[in-house]
Amino acid sequence: MSNLKLSRLLRIRSLFYSKYEKRLAASIKHLVGSKPFNLSLYKLAIKHASAAEESINGMKISNERLEYLGDAILGAVVAEFLFIKFPYRDEGFLTEIRSRMVNREALNQIAIKVGLSKIIAEEYKGKNLVSHKSIYGDALEALVGAVYLDRGYHFCRKFILKRLIIHFDLDNIIKTTSNFKSKVIEWSQKENVEVDFKTVSVSGNQRFKEFEVELIVNKEIVATGKGATKKKAEQEAAKNACEILHIAI
Amino acid sequence: MSNLKLSRLLRIRSLFYSKYEKRLAASIKHLVGSKPFNLSLYKLAIKHASAAEESINGMKISNERLEYLGDAILGAVVAEFLFIKFPYRDEGFLTEIRSRMVNREALNQIAIKVGLSKIIAEEYKGKNLVSHKSIYGDALEALVGAVYLDRGYHFCRKFILKRLIIHFDLDNIIKTTSNFKSKVIEWSQKENVEVDFKTVSVSGNQRFKEFEVELIVNKEIVATGKGATKKKAEQEAAKNACEILHIAI
Repeated sequence: MSNLKLSRLLRIRSLFYSKYEKRLAASIKHLVGSKPFNLSLYKLAIKHASAAEESINGMKISNERLEYLGDAILGAVVAEFLFIKFPYRDEGFLTEIRSRMVNREALNQIAIKVGLSKIIAEEYKGKNLVSHKSIYGDALEALVGAVYLDRGYHFCRKFILKRLIIHFDLDNIIKTTSNFKSKVIEWSQKENVEVDFKTVSVSGNQRFKEFEVELIVNKEIVATGKGATKKKAEQEAAKNACEILHIAI
Repeated sequence: MSNLKLSRLLRIRSLFYSKYEKRLAASIKHLVGSKPFNLSLYKLAIKHASAAEESINGMKISNERLEYLGDAILGAVVAEFLFIKFPYRDEGFLTEIRSRMVNREALNQIAIKVGLSKIIAEEYKGKNLVSHKSIYGDALEALVGAVYLDRGYHFCRKFILKRLIIHFDLDNIIKTTSNFKSKVIEWSQKENVEVDFKTVSVSGNQRFKEFEVELIVNKEIVATGKGATKKKAEQEAAKNACEILHIAI
């Protein structure tokens, strides 16, 4: 369908919008940069699981499926953005920065900055919405999924680049990229436990090696890590340990 | 640039292809379904880290950056494919099936099926390539990255859907989706250790809960998991434990 036809259809449909729908459509336009074609996608995107209705077949109607889709699309667009922005950095760096950009806390912040949190607050005004800490970040991913389905990849990519990524403080993200090993060592000193990194295997040949490292706390293996260098394997093991031991990073 | 201009440029450039380049271009055409515009992207895609050359600034030239990009694009296309194919399944199911489709072993198999392994074998004929087990799967992801950069999202999406996903035995993948908890219990019986799943916290309200579960092996916490139900949290903890304890799944 051509854009012209679509926009005509849109105008006709929007004649029948309820007051609530008119307000939501305006908010979405403000957020995304263009009127929604299929408003129901956006209605779904702001429906958190805690407010889900059950459909006839017992399925919960919430934004979780859209969140799954949006997460993947966002991941791809951010991956390409970093790939182009940092032509001389290796994939380890790119992967780490990407995971810092799309983590729950970062997405929560972006959702608040772009005003998605206000739309959600409006939606649940007076309702008993559990103040789940990742509700805004989840909805932001779901919104990306909705934009993708509503407008296609190119529009969605532009939306992510021009209206979401722009809010990231990339310099700061890069600067604070954690040294997981030192976090684990700090933690061990505070907790007064013994930490040891043990290289358990090295495979490959002279040019391409893979190290496997175990992180041992008080003689118990807590986590393992693999990498092309001992340092990378240790970082990986330390990163896994931070997660398992709930060490703040 | 229009496709016409590009294809003219392509024809001119391909006049200067070496014998090696002609053969590679033909292989890529067979694999991807269309002649490559920028052959150097594909040359890079089949360059495994173990055969990497160092550039002047000391950077290793290998397919790892393309692999990072391709992984993200593949993830997005597979996510959408499953989203559309299973309109009534929840995001937990979609996430699990996706991770089974894009795991290293599955991608290795696809790379062999589509003949990418042959191109790589040809490339490294007589050279001392370490037989790294994930070399084909890595190259397949890098190829997706190359196709994306060379031809754009829509072409790449079609390539993934029509020429890669078609080789997945989806019914089989769904059937064998693991029950991680039962894997851990089997393992504990074989190893004669004591395993316990302990719910450590429940947050949220009546409609939306989050459970946190610890998996305890011989009185040591080995892994934790979170989820909207106790069952989901236990599965998540068991899945993490399988990874940490190297339990085959």
